[in-house]
Amino acid sequence: MQAPTRSRRFVAEGVGTALLLAVVVGSGIMGERLAGGNLAVALLANTIATGAGLVALILTFGPVSGGHFNPVVTLADASQGGIPWREVPVYVVAQVFGALIGVAGANLMFDLPVYTASQHARHGTGQLLSEGIATFGLLSVIWGCSRQRPSVVPFAVGAYITAGYWFTASTAMANPAVTIARSLTDTFSGIRPTDVPAFIAVQIIGGAAATVLFRWLVPSLPQRSHDVVVPHAVDAAGRAPR
Amino acid sequence: MQAPTRSRRFVAEGVGTALLLAVVVGSGIMGERLAGGNLAVALLANTIATGAGLVALILTFGPVSGGHFNPVVTLADASQGGIPWREVPVYVVAQVFGALIGVAGANLMFDLPVYTASQHARHGTGQLLSEGIATFGLLSVIWGCSRQRPSVVPFAVGAYITAGYWFTASTAMANPAVTIARSLTDTFSGIRPTDVPAFIAVQIIGGAAATVLFRWLVPSLPQRSHDVVVPHAVDAAGRAPR
Amino acid sequence: MQAPTRSRRFVAEGVGTALLLAVVVGSGIMGERLAGGNLAVALLANTIATGAGLVALILTFGPVSGGHFNPVVTLADASQGGIPWREVPVYVVAQVFGALIGVAGANLMFDLPVYTASQHARHGTGQLLSEGIATFGLLSVIWGCSRQRPSVVPFAVGAYITAGYWFTASTAMANPAVTIARSLTDTFSGIRPTDVPAFIAVQIIGGAAATVLFRWLVPSLPQRSHDVVVPHAVDAAGRAPR
Amino acid sequence: MQAPTRSRRFVAEGVGTALLLAVVVGSGIMGERLAGGNLAVALLANTIATGAGLVALILTFGPVSGGHFNPVVTLADASQGGIPWREVPVYVVAQVFGALIGVAGANLMFDLPVYTASQHARHGTGQLLSEGIATFGLLSVIWGCSRQRPSVVPFAVGAYITAGYWFTASTAMANPAVTIARSLTDTFSGIRPTDVPAFIAVQIIGGAAATVLFRWLVPSLPQRSHDVVVPHAVDAAGRAPR
Repeated sequence: MQAPTRSRRFVAEGVGTALLLAVVVGSGIMGERLAGGNLAVALLANTIATGAGLVALILTFGPVSGGHFNPVVTLADASQGGIPWREVPVYVVAQVFGALIGVAGANLMFDLPVYTASQHARHGTGQLLSEGIATFGLLSVIWGCSRQRPSVVPFAVGAYITAGYWFTASTAMANPAVTIARSLTDTFSGIRPTDVPAFIAVQIIGGAAATVLFRWLVPSLPQRSHDVVVPHAVDAAGRAPR
Repeated sequence: MQAPTRSRRFVAEGVGTALLLAVVVGSGIMGERLAGGNLAVALLANTIATGAGLVALILTFGPVSGGHFNPVVTLADASQGGIPWREVPVYVVAQVFGALIGVAGANLMFDLPVYTASQHARHGTGQLLSEGIATFGLLSVIWGCSRQRPSVVPFAVGAYITAGYWFTASTAMANPAVTIARSLTDTFSGIRPTDVPAFIAVQIIGGAAATVLFRWLVPSLPQRSHDVVVPHAVDAAGRAPR
Repeated sequence: MQAPTRSRRFVAEGVGTALLLAVVVGSGIMGERLAGGNLAVALLANTIATGAGLVALILTFGPVSGGHFNPVVTLADASQGGIPWREVPVYVVAQVFGALIGVAGANLMFDLPVYTASQHARHGTGQLLSEGIATFGLLSVIWGCSRQRPSVVPFAVGAYITAGYWFTASTAMANPAVTIARSLTDTFSGIRPTDVPAFIAVQIIGGAAATVLFRWLVPSLPQRSHDVVVPHAVDAAGRAPR
Repeated sequence: MQAPTRSRRFVAEGVGTALLLAVVVGSGIMGERLAGGNLAVALLANTIATGAGLVALILTFGPVSGGHFNPVVTLADASQGGIPWREVPVYVVAQVFGALIGVAGANLMFDLPVYTASQHARHGTGQLLSEGIATFGLLSVIWGCSRQRPSVVPFAVGAYITAGYWFTASTAMANPAVTIARSLTDTFSGIRPTDVPAFIAVQIIGGAAATVLFRWLVPSLPQRSHDVVVPHAVDAAGRAPR
């Protein structure tokens, strides 16, 4: 059995990222509507939905496309000889396109306009430091787990983002596609469009730092880099994943 | 060792669905009673109980009957050559009958009448779109995981529904048997009987869409479709599940 | 390598049950103190601590003693030819004694008297039906999982009790040793001593019903009954548990 | 393939402990800021973030350094012939240094001064008994799981600390490096510097008690003590961990 075709992987990345954004944005709307003004309760709901949703979606789409759902992950993977560079644009387009579909879906499910620019200001040193650390941590988790114990990556990523929603001042977007899409909903999880570029810049820096660190920490990293996130091709070839 | 007999599978589907409904409805009653009017806290309790309960129940009854607890799952499985069509009515009857027992149990545990028609209105475009997306996602999770890594299905389904309670406007029933039964309790998780048919219609559409998508995404799907949800027959034959 | 000696298993059951009660009672006290009168928030804290604590404790002590922590589990196991009948009193004494130590530890950690009789009334049809269903479900989870996939028992039990705290009107004690010990703390998780005997009676009935059901559902149950809860003897013999 | 070099293990312990403190302290700040005065909701957020973060971080750094992040764990491991005594100071320095970096990171992400002495008083019999029991329990979980089923240690430790935040009066620091670092933030999770030494003393006593107990409970403990927390050297050598 061979690896899934490029069109299948494109669709899997797109549908998976769309569902991820529906989870992130939709649960933020529901949380804020029901929480009666207690923002901690709203964020708790948003957190639990996002962490659980990530576990389910990476388990579901990972075997087809790797379940990146995140341009920084795709870039980091390519930088270490994993996914071929020529496929990077395909993945990033699928991720951004899927994210835009997903935020529209969330807005429509809650009877809101398809897209509205967010007015939620997120800027300043603390916010940018937060996104840098958040993405550094996310890529550390992915590199650390995918090298040694790839079967736990979906659980580790879900757990990490669960923590990230609370331990960073920015709620750990750690994902350019997510950040862009979240600028198009004027709800709990939104981010002002003008704040997006700086977020993306520090996300890339944080992800690069983690990649450099783990290339040194785990010398065998490049040789196995086709296994990033979920060992898709290998699993599809019949190896029993755990 | 052979697969469990039909009567055992019927009873397992029925008892499992009864306990699932007891969890869904009972935790909604308890949450609403204790939450002092904060609906987000009530739904958080309802969510955590339902997600955790699903994990436990699929792990418990899955090895006997597959742990469908859901007519859409049973239909999707049969459509791909899994469970034989002649068994579908048996499963659906067990699911609906079990669900009705379960909601009665929940009402009685909380000293309420056995059955009361719900007055909780759930209708409109956002609600129906929510149920369609919710069921599309649920079947995607089941097809995606059960093909490649069946041992994680109970955890993936529990995690997905945990997210679904928050990211959809309808709290992701995604299950006709659950929807019917929830019309018979006038409590937190209820749904007005007149809103039930439209919910069931979009649930079937969403489930069918996911089945078509995954048949294309994972071409090996039909060949292994006896493994749906939990690889019951194979496990019963002695293969060590993980 | 042989099975752990009886004295080791006695101590493991006792220490494990003591820590379990410390978790159940202590987290109830902390939850009530901090929740500012919102009982749902207090119970949510109590639930998350108990569910997570159970997972950790069964994983820790299960390989030594089976991690029953519960006389109903021990009795059910013995009834199916698992643990020898002559060991049942040893286990039950360890469980009750450990539970009494644990509740004392919880009270002392929170600067309360070692023991105080609870004044928390829990009686009536709904409460007793709740305990019967709760224990039926708990034993179903244990029998269903331990027969087919013993490695998941700690997670399934933790998940089930997480659901049980909310879907039953009695917060699913489902355990005579826990029930007795909870009568000795006049805090959130307490139960009036006069309400204890009826709880224990319906717990035994519920557990017996689940045992009869699963003996029929899974015919291979008696042959493997030494594996109850956690396959201790077998694991100790070197089989790699999963 | 050989075990990771000492410098790699030093860096892994340091970065992992830094991220752990960022999670503990940062989520406490965020929780308190958003909870509108409800301390139970703030602690619930702090708990979920910490438990989930621990799972992710032990999975990530465990294969390199063992993922101790805790001087008591390192000392206990060395006492049983695991990590060589000459490496203990290296680990402890990395843990304390990393913890100090992490708390600074959390403070900066939330636009607070790098370090401020905490004024949060935590003393008295109940608090010290709590830390003793908390560390006894933590080391029990580590010894119990790492002997028999090392793959679950990250999940068991995360689950145990989730429970510990609620069942002890001290929120279960159970870790001298964490305790020292938490004295340098005047926020939700802080501890007054003058209260730190007594906490560390009872943490060591609790950890020693658990080590003595499990040396007796599991006689094979010393022979396999290189496996503490996460079987790093063995995994690095290519054994598929589960």
